[in-house]
Amino acid sequence: MGSNKESTTAGKAIRCKAAICRNAGEPLIIEEIEVDPPKAWEVRIKILCTSLCHSDITFWKMKPGPLSDFPRIFGHEATGVVESVGDHVEEVKEGELVLPVFAPDCGECRDCRSTKSNICSKFSVSSGQFGMPRDGTSRFRDMKGEVLHHFLSVSSFTEYTVVDVAHMVKLSHGIPVDKASLLSCGISTGIGASWKLAGVEEGSTVAIFGLGAVGLAVAEGARLRGASKIIGVDLNPEKFELGIKFGLTDFVNPSTCGEKSVSQVIKEMTEGGADYCFECVGLASLMTEAFRSSREGWGKTVILGVEMHGSPLSLNPYELLRGKSVAGALIGGLKPKSDIPLLAEKYIDKELNLEQFITHEVSFKDINKAFELLLGGKSLRCVIWMDK
Amino acid sequence: MGSNKESTTAGKAIRCKAAICRNAGEPLIIEEIEVDPPKAWEVRIKILCTSLCHSDITFWKMKPGPLSDFPRIFGHEATGVVESVGDHVEEVKEGELVLPVFAPDCGECRDCRSTKSNICSKFSVSSGQFGMPRDGTSRFRDMKGEVLHHFLSVSSFTEYTVVDVAHMVKLSHGIPVDKASLLSCGISTGIGASWKLAGVEEGSTVAIFGLGAVGLAVAEGARLRGASKIIGVDLNPEKFELGIKFGLTDFVNPSTCGEKSVSQVIKEMTEGGADYCFECVGLASLMTEAFRSSREGWGKTVILGVEMHGSPLSLNPYELLRGKSVAGALIGGLKPKSDIPLLAEKYIDKELNLEQFITHEVSFKDINKAFELLLGGKSLRCVIWMDK
Ligand SMILES: NC(=O)c1ccc[n+]([C@@H]2O[C@H](COP(=O)([O-])OP(=O)(O)OC[C@H]3O[C@@H](n4cnc5c(N)ncnc54)[C@H](O)[C@@H]3O)[C@@H](O)[C@H]2O)c1
Ligand SMILES: NC(=O)c1ccc[n+]([C@@H]2O[C@H](COP(=O)([O-])OP(=O)(O)OC[C@H]3O[C@@H](n4cnc5c(N)ncnc54)[C@H](O)[C@@H]3O)[C@@H](O)[C@H]2O)c1
Ligand SMILES: [Zn+2]
Ligand SMILES: [Zn+2]
Ligand SMILES: [Zn+2]
Ligand SMILES: [Zn+2]
Repeated sequence: MGSNKESTTAGKAIRCKAAICRNAGEPLIIEEIEVDPPKAWEVRIKILCTSLCHSDITFWKMKPGPLSDFPRIFGHEATGVVESVGDHVEEVKEGELVLPVFAPDCGECRDCRSTKSNICSKFSVSSGQFGMPRDGTSRFRDMKGEVLHHFLSVSSFTEYTVVDVAHMVKLSHGIPVDKASLLSCGISTGIGASWKLAGVEEGSTVAIFGLGAVGLAVAEGARLRGASKIIGVDLNPEKFELGIKFGLTDFVNPSTCGEKSVSQVIKEMTEGGADYCFECVGLASLMTEAFRSSREGWGKTVILGVEMHGSPLSLNPYELLRGKSVAGALIGGLKPKSDIPLLAEKYIDKELNLEQFITHEVSFKDINKAFELLLGGKSLRCVIWMDK
Repeated sequence: MGSNKESTTAGKAIRCKAAICRNAGEPLIIEEIEVDPPKAWEVRIKILCTSLCHSDITFWKMKPGPLSDFPRIFGHEATGVVESVGDHVEEVKEGELVLPVFAPDCGECRDCRSTKSNICSKFSVSSGQFGMPRDGTSRFRDMKGEVLHHFLSVSSFTEYTVVDVAHMVKLSHGIPVDKASLLSCGISTGIGASWKLAGVEEGSTVAIFGLGAVGLAVAEGARLRGASKIIGVDLNPEKFELGIKFGLTDFVNPSTCGEKSVSQVIKEMTEGGADYCFECVGLASLMTEAFRSSREGWGKTVILGVEMHGSPLSLNPYELLRGKSVAGALIGGLKPKSDIPLLAEKYIDKELNLEQFITHEVSFKDINKAFELLLGGKSLRCVIWMDK
């Protein structure tokens, strides 16, 4: 099995370290695990570095249910090199640089072939998916033989992981691996949403709810497109200081708006509402407020946040009639295999700044520190180095 | 006052007949009223014929509150000729054929000058507007001197009405007046939504919730664009027979779906969901169901119905993340002064069929019959002739 005869580990289970979550909300525990060799259409990847996204936190906190089960290996932003490949894998070979990506891109289904969609209809980005997309089984076991669940078809908090070839993007070696990692989720989400899904134009007004890496990547995208006003909304005032580098021109802290709602404040700042509003937190109530903050006539609200509590989004239908619209997307509407390499090129060509999103770095053994930093509102992206 | 010296009535109040609604849900009463001469920027119109749209019904049923007050003169689909004009009106003169339109088009504000919007930001389509858009006062009085409220800046259930020049579209005399009347609201709404707001393409699948004139105009628009499947959803099975002429290919009656939800049925009929879903009833629950019926990846749900009960629209935010979007519009996203004359031309050029939307005709004195027909699900559009 495996078309790479050179790898000494190919075809065998690999024993390595992984950060396991045994119960919702508990610190990860670094343990030895066994990682099966890749089956057909699968790729085993040696992770070089990984970074923590808020979606990991959302599912890490989630009590067991249809979308959550433990023990589980989280992590879905990472850079790695191919260790070995299963049958039929021709896209990559041992030693090549790849990003595992939670959003599938099979290249064959009606959606993957259409320019209008980035939601593969052959595979589903189902967060309920605890195993591999083709057969649902896990490639991970702990030393007692207990199966460890996958996360978002990636599971990068381990020295080795196995992903489906549909969940992998090949990159040229020109990009530093830590910067590349950011492109496998958060930054691609924000930039994609700004450029592709919303299509922010020069001179437009933008309001961004939530100034994490996703929200600030939206800001960076809007800044590069020449938006005239980029309003950041966050409860954490430290985010504004940070946000200025990404082009934020104004800041609204919901806790200091007094009698006024955030949407009232934004409407006053923008003569009636922002052209584009982005929700980058994951709270239905903020999605409603973002929608209210959008202008009549053409105001577009883009939902990026993964709702934390499973709450429905409530909209006033009369506001929709006045020319407003709402759209959402995974990974900013980008098609991973074709669009992410273009963003990597833009970084190499110095058109896109990725450095400033990396606020912290830790070694793998200190992975829980990355959780503390993100939960405490201190970091944008904390890069976790596997070999340190 | 008035730049038309030829009109013998110009500058004076006109005494004429109007159908007055004195209390929510009660039959209209034809009474003599006085219609003031037009003030600056206003046009007094002799109504030739008018038709009944469901939005009249929605507000006619509504108990007094911020959006509703009585006595009121309803009606907002009509064709008329200019009787006289107020100061500064240069767009039309006495005797010209015009449609009063509830959606303003001032031509000067940022929205009216932009191709992206049809929501005039100088004037508001406020259904709470009981008078003229510029000064809020009424031009109607009954014989006891009591003020009669306007409706949607049109009020066409009267032999004479006064509208702001921003609420009026000039037409050439080539189009029969009854067909023209349909273009002042319902049919323009459906065709506009299909062509402009949604942009239905050849081969696409369409689901339409509510098969009144608005829903069937969406169907007609989709048919002309070459949609491959046009599914109609209605509780009234008579609408399907009627709908076949407008291109409906399939029919779903929510009351005979058994265990399945309408969205499940539509997903099965369309391999995963329709490309475009339209809500043309005005119920938040149906809007949600329309959204659920749309396909992941690029499914677009268009809200046209005016919610009858003031209920909020509830959406599952995870569905939005999978590439769905929702948009709404008044009058289908059309810009009245420029787009409605183009539809009139298409009718004259036999590219657009309007006849089949007119299922009934009554004389003004029988206006309550038009209400009965629409409420009973018997009519699409009933033309009400003023001179008969
Ligand atoms: N759609 C996608 O493909 C996609 C991809 C990546 C992340 N996400 C989601 O995007 C969201 C943001 O991710 P991130 O990694 O940037 O998170 P983050 O934790 O770095 O940032 C979230 C920000 O929201 C702020 N915030 C929290 N509650 C708030 C409130 N009530 N009002 C205003 N601000 C508030 C926090 O202070 C923080 O700055 C998450 O929901 C994540 O799951 C979605
Ligand atoms: N957005 C706009 O600019 C605009 C313009 C015109 C009309 N409207 C609105 O569009 C809607 C339709 O107007 P119309 O004149 O075509 O109305 P209509 O009364 O002719 O048609 C409504 C149809 O909906 C069906 N229906 C009612 N309840 C239903 C349910 N629960 N499930 C399925 N079908 C159901 C009825 O049987 C009927 O066929 C109304 O809400 C109206 O106010 C909006
Ligand atoms: Zn992520
Ligand atoms: Zn696919
Ligand atoms: Zn109408
Ligand atoms: Zn205007």
